[in-house]
Amino acid sequence: MKQSTRHMIPPGTADIFGAKMRLREHALNVIEHTYKKFGFEPLSTPVLENAIVFDGHHGEGEKLLFNLNDKNGNPLVLRYDLTVPLARVMGMYPQLMRPFKRYQLALSFRDDEPDKGHFREFIQCDADAVGISDLTADAEVIMMAATGLEKIGFGSYVIRVNHRGILKGIAECIGGYNCDVLKFQRSLDFADKVLKQGIEGIKSDLAEKGFDQRSINLLLPILGLNGDPMHVLDGIFAMLMDHVSLNQGVSDLRKILSYLPKEIYNHVEIDFTLARGADYYTGFILEGVIPEIPVGAVLGGGRYDNLIAAAGGKSEPAVGMAFGLERIITAMEELSMMVNDENPTILLFGVNKQTAITRAYQMRRHDIMVDYNPNIMILSEAVEYARTRGYSAVVCCDGLEIAITTIKPTPESFYQKMSEAVRSFA
Amino acid sequence: MKQSTRHMIPPGTADIFGAKMRLREHALNVIEHTYKKFGFEPLSTPVLENAIVFDGHHGEGEKLLFNLNDKNGNPLVLRYDLTVPLARVMGMYPQLMRPFKRYQLALSFRDDEPDKGHFREFIQCDADAVGISDLTADAEVIMMAATGLEKIGFGSYVIRVNHRGILKGIAECIGGYNCDVLKFQRSLDFADKVLKQGIEGIKSDLAEKGFDQRSINLLLPILGLNGDPMHVLDGIFAMLMDHVSLNQGVSDLRKILSYLPKEIYNHVEIDFTLARGADYYTGFILEGVIPEIPVGAVLGGGRYDNLIAAAGGKSEPAVGMAFGLERIITAMEELSMMVNDENPTILLFGVNKQTAITRAYQMRRHDIMVDYNPNIMILSEAVEYARTRGYSAVVCCDGLEIAITTIKPTPESFYQKMSEAVRSFA
Repeated sequence: MKQSTRHMIPPGTADIFGAKMRLREHALNVIEHTYKKFGFEPLSTPVLENAIVFDGHHGEGEKLLFNLNDKNGNPLVLRYDLTVPLARVMGMYPQLMRPFKRYQLALSFRDDEPDKGHFREFIQCDADAVGISDLTADAEVIMMAATGLEKIGFGSYVIRVNHRGILKGIAECIGGYNCDVLKFQRSLDFADKVLKQGIEGIKSDLAEKGFDQRSINLLLPILGLNGDPMHVLDGIFAMLMDHVSLNQGVSDLRKILSYLPKEIYNHVEIDFTLARGADYYTGFILEGVIPEIPVGAVLGGGRYDNLIAAAGGKSEPAVGMAFGLERIITAMEELSMMVNDENPTILLFGVNKQTAITRAYQMRRHDIMVDYNPNIMILSEAVEYARTRGYSAVVCCDGLEIAITTIKPTPESFYQKMSEAVRSFA
Repeated sequence: MKQSTRHMIPPGTADIFGAKMRLREHALNVIEHTYKKFGFEPLSTPVLENAIVFDGHHGEGEKLLFNLNDKNGNPLVLRYDLTVPLARVMGMYPQLMRPFKRYQLALSFRDDEPDKGHFREFIQCDADAVGISDLTADAEVIMMAATGLEKIGFGSYVIRVNHRGILKGIAECIGGYNCDVLKFQRSLDFADKVLKQGIEGIKSDLAEKGFDQRSINLLLPILGLNGDPMHVLDGIFAMLMDHVSLNQGVSDLRKILSYLPKEIYNHVEIDFTLARGADYYTGFILEGVIPEIPVGAVLGGGRYDNLIAAAGGKSEPAVGMAFGLERIITAMEELSMMVNDENPTILLFGVNKQTAITRAYQMRRHDIMVDYNPNIMILSEAVEYARTRGYSAVVCCDGLEIAITTIKPTPESFYQKMSEAVRSFA
């Protein structure tokens, strides 16, 4: 029995304690509330799925599946994502009313390289609407993304938007109609390259992949378009108006953007280099970034109209997005964002245990969060303990009297609840 | 590729949709809020643990471990419970300040018999305080149990309480000092037998297990004690006062009960047949039951002062409890308990999409939960859709006007928020 392994967790997993959990809970609560606010309902699916459910869905990703057998020998996997289980649900319960709008905040598992900083279990935060082709649903995804980032507390954020039809149009334009659109998209989809080497990086990458210099030069003015999203769309339309796919993409995006309120439209940028990795997107795609924090996209999504069929369901239009919890937490930490604790915890102590435990209970009846510590008898020790745990105040109880020592700013509601509690002591 | 298996989930797992999720979320939110209210902090540990962490902890239970290997061949298990990971945490981070009070609401996994109705993945809801021997902590566990059941909405509930010292005293008394206390405890711990056959069942079981008739007859007056908890303790003390373990147990329980406020004390029953399965309890033990619903205990816990040492940490006193989520949900369903939706969802529709999506957004800015459906144009269809999804109201938008059709009772706050939203339309 090795003590060391008994006291270790597998690489790529984590134990998360109180203070860190507060940030996560804040972010998760906001994300959940945002999804609900847009009419999405919670769905829970099992971590354990029959192995065949994930068979043939993730290409190279399948190497990252955790495989196991139950004691009857049935092959199972730990779910790799929340999208394939959604597709399974749509196939398994065909009677579900459309649009089926579900969100799911839940763990996914990948047997990835922990030494590269990849988590092997992590929370995904997906929302998808299945069975709706109307572009108001795409606009609502953008609104939902913006609302979430704003409510989490990000002052400045950018929603980058593009459309697979536009990417196809551009690819056709620079490579002719036989252009390998997917290869072109993948060339664009090196977020690192885009961020670090800009257009030059894309140019050299396309050249490496066999696109000729003439075509690549055609790309430059397109990628140079920037500014007001509607003007950018006018610009590319003027340049490439004879490409059908592009026209469809431009007209979709115009429609989607027209549905946005001004305060959200102002956060949107059209970015023709945005391609997103997953091949299954068919229409508009989006990413969210926090400009001052180069952690990459903190959310992503788009329209995919064939995915459900790929899982054996009938072909249906769908649109969705996911917040990237870990990156959001990283960004919050780097910006030193504080979470306002609406319901702060206090430490309560007192020389007489009977009095102290009774007061603690009475305060809790008034919805005050009370950690009562019977081992603490003096104020300095109490303050030390409360500080270490990040509590807002220390309350010393003695008979009918209480003395409050504030450690952090506490909301007005706390004092209201406290004075109600004190009135109940008598 | 079998369609059938692609569209199935493993036995003993479940997909859970909107309406059912509402009950679960209500129960989970109350449990979490209750734990926080008593000063417990959230802890997250991984689902994947090194296999050795669970080695030697669960006896027969180890057959139920899900085993797997990562791609480097390291043996892993899916966590079987939340208690062993807590013991690992205490050993791995010895610097954690005591008392360490953590709660964890998270999935555990057991490769159990699904045909007997056992779940193979299920949420456990544990709270434990490690490093505290003061009996106020035991009293707070009882308060926490009672607060949780009350806030979930159970009008009548009973907290059954016992003490391992008393069980030991009784065992010694009826079997002499060489009595196998553990065997005696296990005989008592057939909840089914206790509930279905009462004292007769216990008598015949003890006889089967080799206890002599004289000893068993001694047991009858003890198990016959009932009524006010303090009187029951006085009664057993008068009968068996020369047994050291029993004296300790009685004195502990008296102390614990003395800390309880009257409204909780009134829900407590001393039950000398309560033994609880887990061998690791060393002091007081508790269970919660809803008398009108015979689903068994909806919560359980107690004091265990050796468990952490068993996992390679230093020996420390600890006390804790767990709400049984699935049984709580079953009880809520059987009692047809309704969850008051403080923030109900509405369906919004309108002939002009631009107006409708704008109104939906404006209402959401006022924290109204809005499902906008662009495919619905007429009221009857809207009401049908909203009813199916369990929404509270339908709102038809046309220009600056809105028309609300109420489907379920909606809280006053909804109308307040709605009138604020309407004022913002202009």
